[in-house]
Amino acid sequence: MTNTKTDETTIVLRNDNGPVATVILNAPRSRNALSGAMMTALHAVLDDIAADTSIRSVILAANGPVFCAGHDLKEMNSISACDGHAALFAQCSALMMRIVTLPQPVIARVHAMATAAGCQLVASCDLAVAGKAAKFATPGVNIGLFCSTPMVALSRNIARKHAMRMLLTGDAIDADTAWQMGLVSDVATDDDLIIATDDLATRIAERSAMTVKLGKEAFYRQLEMPLSGAYDYASGVMTNNMQKHDAREGIGAFVEKRHPDWRHE
Amino acid sequence: MTNTKTDETTIVLRNDNGPVATVILNAPRSRNALSGAMMTALHAVLDDIAADTSIRSVILAANGPVFCAGHDLKEMNSISACDGHAALFAQCSALMMRIVTLPQPVIARVHAMATAAGCQLVASCDLAVAGKAAKFATPGVNIGLFCSTPMVALSRNIARKHAMRMLLTGDAIDADTAWQMGLVSDVATDDDLIIATDDLATRIAERSAMTVKLGKEAFYRQLEMPLSGAYDYASGVMTNNMQKHDAREGIGAFVEKRHPDWRHE
Amino acid sequence: MTNTKTDETTIVLRNDNGPVATVILNAPRSRNALSGAMMTALHAVLDDIAADTSIRSVILAANGPVFCAGHDLKEMNSISACDGHAALFAQCSALMMRIVTLPQPVIARVHAMATAAGCQLVASCDLAVAGKAAKFATPGVNIGLFCSTPMVALSRNIARKHAMRMLLTGDAIDADTAWQMGLVSDVATDDDLIIATDDLATRIAERSAMTVKLGKEAFYRQLEMPLSGAYDYASGVMTNNMQKHDAREGIGAFVEKRHPDWRHE
Repeated sequence: MTNTKTDETTIVLRNDNGPVATVILNAPRSRNALSGAMMTALHAVLDDIAADTSIRSVILAANGPVFCAGHDLKEMNSISACDGHAALFAQCSALMMRIVTLPQPVIARVHAMATAAGCQLVASCDLAVAGKAAKFATPGVNIGLFCSTPMVALSRNIARKHAMRMLLTGDAIDADTAWQMGLVSDVATDDDLIIATDDLATRIAERSAMTVKLGKEAFYRQLEMPLSGAYDYASGVMTNNMQKHDAREGIGAFVEKRHPDWRHE
Repeated sequence: MTNTKTDETTIVLRNDNGPVATVILNAPRSRNALSGAMMTALHAVLDDIAADTSIRSVILAANGPVFCAGHDLKEMNSISACDGHAALFAQCSALMMRIVTLPQPVIARVHAMATAAGCQLVASCDLAVAGKAAKFATPGVNIGLFCSTPMVALSRNIARKHAMRMLLTGDAIDADTAWQMGLVSDVATDDDLIIATDDLATRIAERSAMTVKLGKEAFYRQLEMPLSGAYDYASGVMTNNMQKHDAREGIGAFVEKRHPDWRHE
Repeated sequence: MTNTKTDETTIVLRNDNGPVATVILNAPRSRNALSGAMMTALHAVLDDIAADTSIRSVILAANGPVFCAGHDLKEMNSISACDGHAALFAQCSALMMRIVTLPQPVIARVHAMATAAGCQLVASCDLAVAGKAAKFATPGVNIGLFCSTPMVALSRNIARKHAMRMLLTGDAIDADTAWQMGLVSDVATDDDLIIATDDLATRIAERSAMTVKLGKEAFYRQLEMPLSGAYDYASGVMTNNMQKHDAREGIGAFVEKRHPDWRHE
């Protein structure tokens, strides 16, 4: 477990560029494995961003030849007690939920292989840009440990049979296939990956943060409601949205053909 | 608000061709915006059709260079009270539910851009034929007003990341992409759009109206049930279906290699 | 009803090849229709396999020019009482649920047309390999009997508008389209269909049966839960999985770069 000895501030880097925060998994030698230390560090960085109203979109990227290899197997095997494993998976699930509940949209920037909980990380982001060299797999079945928590996110992104094939075989899919299935929202050439992701993040950051936050939260909540309940709920969200400065300003600017002046509140 | 001064009977046209009713949004100058008046008129036409047992399928089309631009922003901005906005979104949601609960299948015929609630209109239809020039977008985020009610329909049609990309960027997708994602059921050349949609509507209208009505209703209801509950429910629906004249007649005609004589009851 | 007079042991064949059981619908003259006798025989074979711990994956295939034509219409029409139809649909739904609840993954091997409940059979399997000559349709609407129970499985596999198009028109889709939509997990040339399916089944059978069983069960259960409940549940499943011999063994073998020695327990 080399990671746990590393200073946590270096396991996860955060670079802000105006309203865009880029969060970088930075443990290339352990293939950015989601060790307890890595998850703690990533969760802490995300908590900081959640509280930072100057940040309006987030890129989740990684250094090294692998995007993220999932759980740290050596660490996992070194835990002997059931309670320890339960705590580890609870920590991992809380991390994934932290992405979903973050006020800002999170865009995965996937340049290479993302496996198991690493694939789950991508599936849990709101958007994902895959470089042509990216690959995605849930190979837990190969080591006797089914990717049960990754499948929660995966099976809510792609069709059942495609998800089942990934889960039962562990086979990797490439970037274009991931787009076709719905696991990623964008595909870029490897050369364009960084600029394409930055562009997407910047465009979202130029929108009203209030509007984006309200929309993201409503997206996941209404998905879990029956249709007519979802409409009742979303009508309330939209009515609330309309009472805000930024909606009045945005509509006014559109009608008057000028740039809006957001308060983001 | 030019629309509210127009006679409502001209905002929405209805042309019947035997059992197929074509409903046409007819406010090209306001890009067929879903003003209060437009929604009232469209809802009324749909109510009429729901009660008209001679109609067995419905085409929802539009005149002018835009299919439908969503809500009427000037009207929306002219409303000062929260209650007014709540009423507007409730009216819009009720209109979308009217399509879903209509006994007859509704086929959107999309020849051009469909945005925001206009995109929702397409998503709410049972089927949608897109011409090659059709485009689909949910750009509310650009004006500070997230497409929260459109996303209810959109996110039940296409994969999460594809929906999120449309909602967070406002970018339009084209007809072929919409088919790949599942937002439309058919793509036609611009020249063939009308004939392809008419053909689809006519074929459905040739079926037993009872069977189609019963199937459409069951489709949306069972989607909101867990798997085993859905089977219990659908088995009941199918048993009920089998007791009807049209099922006996249809099976008999199939076995005897003749055309069925539907009662549609 | 030729089927009911046939010895049931010949309607459904079972060939075991080590840990892979191939179950074959064998009533080519009745296009492998799911008569009461066929469903009884198939359900019985699946029950046997469920209890047979030597079997670790299952192929569901068919003999003759049609994969499966759905219900036996002559039989269905010969039943006069509502109770009889209710029993038939309940039997069919129980058969589909038997596939879903089988401890072993079931892979449909579809070489030809699968219609109505035959299409549902494919949709109900965990994976499906389609040969290029395979086709899929839910044409009940043509005979006045909407494919209401097939749509339960179909609408949980593919996007709503694609499902609705199949259900309202009865039109068939081909193998490549079925893959794009998510109805099948693999497409093979007709020549490679058997070998490709065998390969998939064999690879799954080489995994820990305990792991696969636990994962398959969790897959369908978590799909019906809200996101955060699904994570709680799946974290528990994964913690439980980690306490098993096969997970310890699998992780150990991976770390030590050797082949795992499963107990499958």
